[in-house]
Amino acid sequence: MRFSKIFIPTTKETLKDATLPSHQFLLRAGFIAQNGSGLYDFLPLGKMVYNRIEKIIREEMNRSGALEVSFSFVTPANFWRESGRFEKYGKELLRFKDRKENDFVLSPTNEESAVNMVKNRITSYKNLPLHIYQINTKFRDEARPRFGLLRGREFVMKDGYSFHKDEECLNLEFEKMHQTYTKIFTRLGLNFRAVEADSGAIGGSGSKEFMVLANNGEDDIVVCDSCEYAANIEAARRKPSKFNGDEPESNMMSKFYTPDIKTIDELADFFKVDKFFTIKAVIKKAIFENKESKIVIFFIRGCDELQETKAINACGCLEFENLSDEEILKSNLVAGFCGPLKLPDGIEFFIDNELKNQKEMIIGANEKDYHIIGFSVSNFKNERFKDLISVKDGDVCPCCNGKLSITKGIEVGHIFKLGTRYSKSLNATFLDENGKSKPFIMGCYGIGVSRLMAVAIESKYDDKGCIWNKEIAPFSICIIISNIKDENQFNFSLNLYKKLGDLGIDVLLDDRNERFGVKMNDYELIGIPYAVIVGKNLVNNEIEFIARDGLIKEKISIDDIVDKIKTVLR
Amino acid sequence: MRFSKIFIPTTKETLKDATLPSHQFLLRAGFIAQNGSGLYDFLPLGKMVYNRIEKIIREEMNRSGALEVSFSFVTPANFWRESGRFEKYGKELLRFKDRKENDFVLSPTNEESAVNMVKNRITSYKNLPLHIYQINTKFRDEARPRFGLLRGREFVMKDGYSFHKDEECLNLEFEKMHQTYTKIFTRLGLNFRAVEADSGAIGGSGSKEFMVLANNGEDDIVVCDSCEYAANIEAARRKPSKFNGDEPESNMMSKFYTPDIKTIDELADFFKVDKFFTIKAVIKKAIFENKESKIVIFFIRGCDELQETKAINACGCLEFENLSDEEILKSNLVAGFCGPLKLPDGIEFFIDNELKNQKEMIIGANEKDYHIIGFSVSNFKNERFKDLISVKDGDVCPCCNGKLSITKGIEVGHIFKLGTRYSKSLNATFLDENGKSKPFIMGCYGIGVSRLMAVAIESKYDDKGCIWNKEIAPFSICIIISNIKDENQFNFSLNLYKKLGDLGIDVLLDDRNERFGVKMNDYELIGIPYAVIVGKNLVNNEIEFIARDGLIKEKISIDDIVDKIKTVLR
Repeated sequence: MRFSKIFIPTTKETLKDATLPSHQFLLRAGFIAQNGSGLYDFLPLGKMVYNRIEKIIREEMNRSGALEVSFSFVTPANFWRESGRFEKYGKELLRFKDRKENDFVLSPTNEESAVNMVKNRITSYKNLPLHIYQINTKFRDEARPRFGLLRGREFVMKDGYSFHKDEECLNLEFEKMHQTYTKIFTRLGLNFRAVEADSGAIGGSGSKEFMVLANNGEDDIVVCDSCEYAANIEAARRKPSKFNGDEPESNMMSKFYTPDIKTIDELADFFKVDKFFTIKAVIKKAIFENKESKIVIFFIRGCDELQETKAINACGCLEFENLSDEEILKSNLVAGFCGPLKLPDGIEFFIDNELKNQKEMIIGANEKDYHIIGFSVSNFKNERFKDLISVKDGDVCPCCNGKLSITKGIEVGHIFKLGTRYSKSLNATFLDENGKSKPFIMGCYGIGVSRLMAVAIESKYDDKGCIWNKEIAPFSICIIISNIKDENQFNFSLNLYKKLGDLGIDVLLDDRNERFGVKMNDYELIGIPYAVIVGKNLVNNEIEFIARDGLIKEKISIDDIVDKIKTVLR
Repeated sequence: MRFSKIFIPTTKETLKDATLPSHQFLLRAGFIAQNGSGLYDFLPLGKMVYNRIEKIIREEMNRSGALEVSFSFVTPANFWRESGRFEKYGKELLRFKDRKENDFVLSPTNEESAVNMVKNRITSYKNLPLHIYQINTKFRDEARPRFGLLRGREFVMKDGYSFHKDEECLNLEFEKMHQTYTKIFTRLGLNFRAVEADSGAIGGSGSKEFMVLANNGEDDIVVCDSCEYAANIEAARRKPSKFNGDEPESNMMSKFYTPDIKTIDELADFFKVDKFFTIKAVIKKAIFENKESKIVIFFIRGCDELQETKAINACGCLEFENLSDEEILKSNLVAGFCGPLKLPDGIEFFIDNELKNQKEMIIGANEKDYHIIGFSVSNFKNERFKDLISVKDGDVCPCCNGKLSITKGIEVGHIFKLGTRYSKSLNATFLDENGKSKPFIMGCYGIGVSRLMAVAIESKYDDKGCIWNKEIAPFSICIIISNIKDENQFNFSLNLYKKLGDLGIDVLLDDRNERFGVKMNDYELIGIPYAVIVGKNLVNNEIEFIARDGLIKEKISIDDIVDKIKTVLR
């Protein structure tokens, strides 16, 4: 394509409100345009990249045996009422009325629609499994849309839903999708990890997120330096931590006067032991689905931190709210001196798994200015013990003896074993081998299609602009005519453009009547993987070849250029 | 693909509310599913057909030099306020508020978004022309959604918008789009006509509709039997009609007592002349954009009929409303005796072009029980004369001497010279060669993408089901295994399936454990262009080949089948 015939409105201005490089560069290089809060148009360059991404996803999904469908974007509210989500889903669900005052929603996800498509159309185990997917617009009315395509309100998602007669079959599909997603993100040229994820309140028996490693990522992910283990911080596990040093002396369990000792550091100092041998209490106010609230205490080792999502899952609540001093007093708790022994009646508590059967621990005595030493964590019901702590840099991998470290990632995909959450509530059943009616066992599988464009940039860019990989770049190569008034330069470039085009290579020919500097700046901003600069040295049969990643330049003979391009694009 | 692995939930039930064959068959054969009034999901078969249609449209649009973009479906209301359409557009425009109480619309069309994308990004005539298009979801909150995909609320449209520095350039693009659409609909295998269309109140200097000929079409289109002329009935023209017979005697203009003569038939009878020599008055109450109303009279030949859209355009109103006897009386009009001479003060009227300078006409005298004979239609201002009449079967073509006939069509595309309607109201300008600021001259170009699936069926089907042409059929051929328990039949079919697949042919292998009759009924309902039936005669090396169109069957040797298929699909 010729630059003079395409619409690439680049700008030098730094755009306020665009804090991330992907947001900044996609706007400045003319890939996207904002037309409202969290609403973006795709300009020609953006649409080219988008189409490449979509094509790879569609090809691999079809290859996996999943069937492409499409659900209407405007969805009748009755589907969402039946599943219970019309009321429960927050304000992100955009609800509206049509001219006849009927309720509708703009789909933020399509579990309900998928179940409705299959319900009564598949009635026997003989026609299972089935995996249907779509690549379609979604809308989530985010409270604070930001970061451009990374957290917009309107976006495109690939959402797939599988239906099975049993868990075993679901597990096979889950594994197949794991492989399919791996193929997709590999073909997209991204540096990603499939990480264990929190299955959340929906339950379900398994969940994996696909994270692209990027400094500006919103998510913390834990990776092992020696095996394949990786997990979202919310779901990360470790080998139970051990104390490297002398164990403390054995003590009879006894109460000690510890005036004004309120922090763990002070406590360890006071008893001259490592924080490893202390137990701290984290007090939370848990809000449940029925809107009721309850105080819950989480006991963890003094040197650990509570992982909030794990804590939420442990007590089965929706979220935590701030707790006032007054509320703590009212419940007869002694802030700073809480321990798992002799808690006031009716206080719910959980203890971290790693504390099970630990001896010689120091705990609060639930009495002002007193702690208990020589405590053994036993005599608690099994249900009290949960995984509650946040994995840290340097912890030991749960799968090998490797070292774990924490890095930043951006979520691009999520595969999830749903179970019967939606088939049950929407009453979608099939007849099994014995003629018995059963709800479908379901899985769901998402990829954020439009956000992948931003993610690709977040994973590779420099201070001059985008650096696209060749898999999804809008063009593979850009030919820059240094001076279009030089007939030789122009004709040589046009010829090369045609020759490469005949080889099926996507070329952008910068034939604009602009200064060389302007064209070079635009090239760097747009970030096409390679460029050929046709300049003054053409008279010596020499042109320049540039790799965008690193801006590596080399002089090359005009006789070698086609082979060079073929080689780098192979 | 194997039938056992795909999701094609066919049903024998006739579906109530589905009055058109396309609606009935698309639902029954498992191409689409309804999930609300005017809302449809696409099942795998439907999505396959849709994708083929979309691909052809995208390829030809790109080939024409138009650039693919995408506009957000949720559009801020301020765009529509600026253009004036937020208030003016009827209830079909779905308006809603987000969580922050800001107004938005679901795009029913995207002139505003297109202008916004180009505004301030193209500032010089040097970067014109530009044509941007998208293939995207639209929503129109129809009062009475019906006919399945033909008049749904959510649908997919290809909408393109071109920007030019002058009319000449717009005309070139309009002509190019005429050719591009012709290529698209030809590749889609449709029997269509490009017809002259009403440019409507928006004005603009030209407009063509692309109509697929179909008995169940909503539109009347006029076609010539000997030249290329074709037009929507609302825009159709003809050679002025002539009277074949003896002209009436010459009369002095004089008033005649014509008691109780109210209809044109009675009048012609009374004076023993042909209706050709009478003028009838059609009285309308016109409603204007500013909500005011006015009585307007349209005078046309007694043997013609008023074309309402032409009449609306003639007086520049939005629509006509019913007129009560009381309102006629109040305005001092004498119903049944209205004529263009001596009308009460303040009554607006128009006269059909063909009446200009006609002599010896009989008109109402604007006096009860009186008519005037010997009237010559002259002495009226030129602005009074407009094209007002509806072309009839048998009228003479305006371009040649061919005969016009009226047939039914379904609109699938519309190309339109918009002019400056939107660039002016949205203040979108560029600098011309002289550095002068000017509004863009625009064109717009639409194709109803999802409705094409229904249109293809309306243009060809039989009482058993769909008859897809090979260009957009979900599969090119279906191999039906008569009895899957017969190992020879099964293995031969599977082999043929693989062989054809290797040739790049899309094959559906009906490998289901169902009776032959069930499979055959499904084949006929789904309407794949060709089928091979592998049955008992396989032992004699003979199978059956079927063409869906006409259900023509022939026995064929297994040695010839691949060549046969290659030939019919060429």
